[in-house]
Amino acid sequence: MTVLILTCEQDVTADMVLAELDANGVPVVRLDPADLPGPVALSGEYVRGAFRGHLSVAGRLVSMGGLRSVWVRRPGAPATHAAEPSDWLTEESAQALYGMLRSTDARWMNDPDAARRARHKPWQLSLAQRCSLPVPATLITTFPQAARDFAVRFPDLVVKPVSGAHPQEPPRAVPTSRVAPDTDFAAVAFGPTLLQRRVAKRADIRLTCVGDRLYAARKTVAPDADPDEVDVRFAASDTPWHAVDTPSSVAAGVRAYLREAGLAFGAFDFAEDADGMWWFLECNQSGQFGFVQIETGQPIAAAVADWLAAPNPAGTQSNGSRSWAIEGH
Amino acid sequence: MTVLILTCEQDVTADMVLAELDANGVPVVRLDPADLPGPVALSGEYVRGAFRGHLSVAGRLVSMGGLRSVWVRRPGAPATHAAEPSDWLTEESAQALYGMLRSTDARWMNDPDAARRARHKPWQLSLAQRCSLPVPATLITTFPQAARDFAVRFPDLVVKPVSGAHPQEPPRAVPTSRVAPDTDFAAVAFGPTLLQRRVAKRADIRLTCVGDRLYAARKTVAPDADPDEVDVRFAASDTPWHAVDTPSSVAAGVRAYLREAGLAFGAFDFAEDADGMWWFLECNQSGQFGFVQIETGQPIAAAVADWLAAPNPAGTQSNGSRSWAIEGH
Repeated sequence: MTVLILTCEQDVTADMVLAELDANGVPVVRLDPADLPGPVALSGEYVRGAFRGHLSVAGRLVSMGGLRSVWVRRPGAPATHAAEPSDWLTEESAQALYGMLRSTDARWMNDPDAARRARHKPWQLSLAQRCSLPVPATLITTFPQAARDFAVRFPDLVVKPVSGAHPQEPPRAVPTSRVAPDTDFAAVAFGPTLLQRRVAKRADIRLTCVGDRLYAARKTVAPDADPDEVDVRFAASDTPWHAVDTPSSVAAGVRAYLREAGLAFGAFDFAEDADGMWWFLECNQSGQFGFVQIETGQPIAAAVADWLAAPNPAGTQSNGSRSWAIEGH
Repeated sequence: MTVLILTCEQDVTADMVLAELDANGVPVVRLDPADLPGPVALSGEYVRGAFRGHLSVAGRLVSMGGLRSVWVRRPGAPATHAAEPSDWLTEESAQALYGMLRSTDARWMNDPDAARRARHKPWQLSLAQRCSLPVPATLITTFPQAARDFAVRFPDLVVKPVSGAHPQEPPRAVPTSRVAPDTDFAAVAFGPTLLQRRVAKRADIRLTCVGDRLYAARKTVAPDADPDEVDVRFAASDTPWHAVDTPSSVAAGVRAYLREAGLAFGAFDFAEDADGMWWFLECNQSGQFGFVQIETGQPIAAAVADWLAAPNPAGTQSNGSRSWAIEGH
């Protein structure tokens, strides 16, 4: 049974997991959907009530029925490297590849539908609330008056993109930023805006979850840190990440979150306040973990490899089971 | 409790359902996500463990907690009608709207994740097989030799797009077409190709499913029909659709299909052969039904209205339940 890794060539985090799988003698195929059609080829046949599919990568043929798991890491869009790329060829190739892979019994890290749903930040906030994780008071609105009222109740606010994405044209980064006290909020009418009570934090927490295994890392906020620099992703820092224990209430919360979300992997960001409380900020279903492993020594790549290599309890899930019997039709 | 219909202004099929809901005194809000932000506004607040969301349309305010169902009909992309539209504003607005609606207890026709998955034709074919619906022998491939071998086994073939989509640049329609016997198939290497045994059909079947209710319609192939015209969507025809009974084995198959797919609505296309067998071609999770109702008199719009108006068994689904209690955090 083979592990399939969908990612681009430059992905060094995948290299770390590949090394673990190789060391354990687990068969792996790595491919970039951008190389389909071309270096990557596929074929699937639906005859007499059964499906038989194959992938070919660099001359190696793999049966889709023999896949134990699929790791969706950093895949390119299908057909991006084609001789004559087009939106239509990308759509055709995506449907062919993912449509066939979805018909197999393979376990997914992460299931494509669960992954897509999990990217919605408003949904993340509700789910975190349901799972009893502390969520800083948040407003998402296009009503200027709602924003003004919220700013009266919570004067110390940050603003961030609803989607977590950044504009491409013109390209610019949208870091989480503090809201000035005299902000008018009239512009809220022109686009949904996410306002959140600023957590006066003493540390950032990254909690990486791989199946049931939790790896928490903590980075102390430097005493001389600029209080207006709230976005750790854009702030230079010499403070290293170090491993910490996960409080049991947080462990129960994130496990419930992943179970309800249908995710096998999630990278949670929390802000730790002066009382030691971990406030949920977001869960990135495809978050990076290489930098955490390198700074903390936590064996996250090995945990991913173990999850991918686990035996496949085939044939029982509603989304995966199918008959291989040859019967009439 | 209110029904929310997401669709564009020109959608006359939604008008049919709206008339039924109005006649039954069911509160309805209809909006086009393309009008957000602008005529459509939203606001959602996450405070003390609870979510409270509102939508505003033409000055009318609707609580998201008071939605009984959401019908995703023909919605425009969010922010399309904005003063300064951009891909980023569309993404922000989509995340805000659908992220909040996904956090409610509302029933969906259809659930967005189930809808997305259900568009994959390779997945449809596997699911139809698992549900014991007869599927014509099909190959999806980028291997020219696999296509040649398949054409030897099944000499009478049609070719169709894998995705069911049509290229936009340059715009052209890609109808289902017969494959000439001398086809070389070398071009298969440049894009995934779907080949299917042609069903020598005596009728087209459209089976519209609304929850548990099934409405089958049949259109006889004219005796003088061009056998090369296999795609009913592109063929002129004077033959009307008329209502027929659904064979019990097909009824069991499509009900299993919708259950496994997580769909509340599906429009199945079958080809009826000379033996009366219905061969599965595809299931469109957002298929049109207005033309079937008009030609057959089947009360499909009323069935949709009934499904949308049904009481909401709130608070138990994993994807919808949430606490409204005001508790500390």
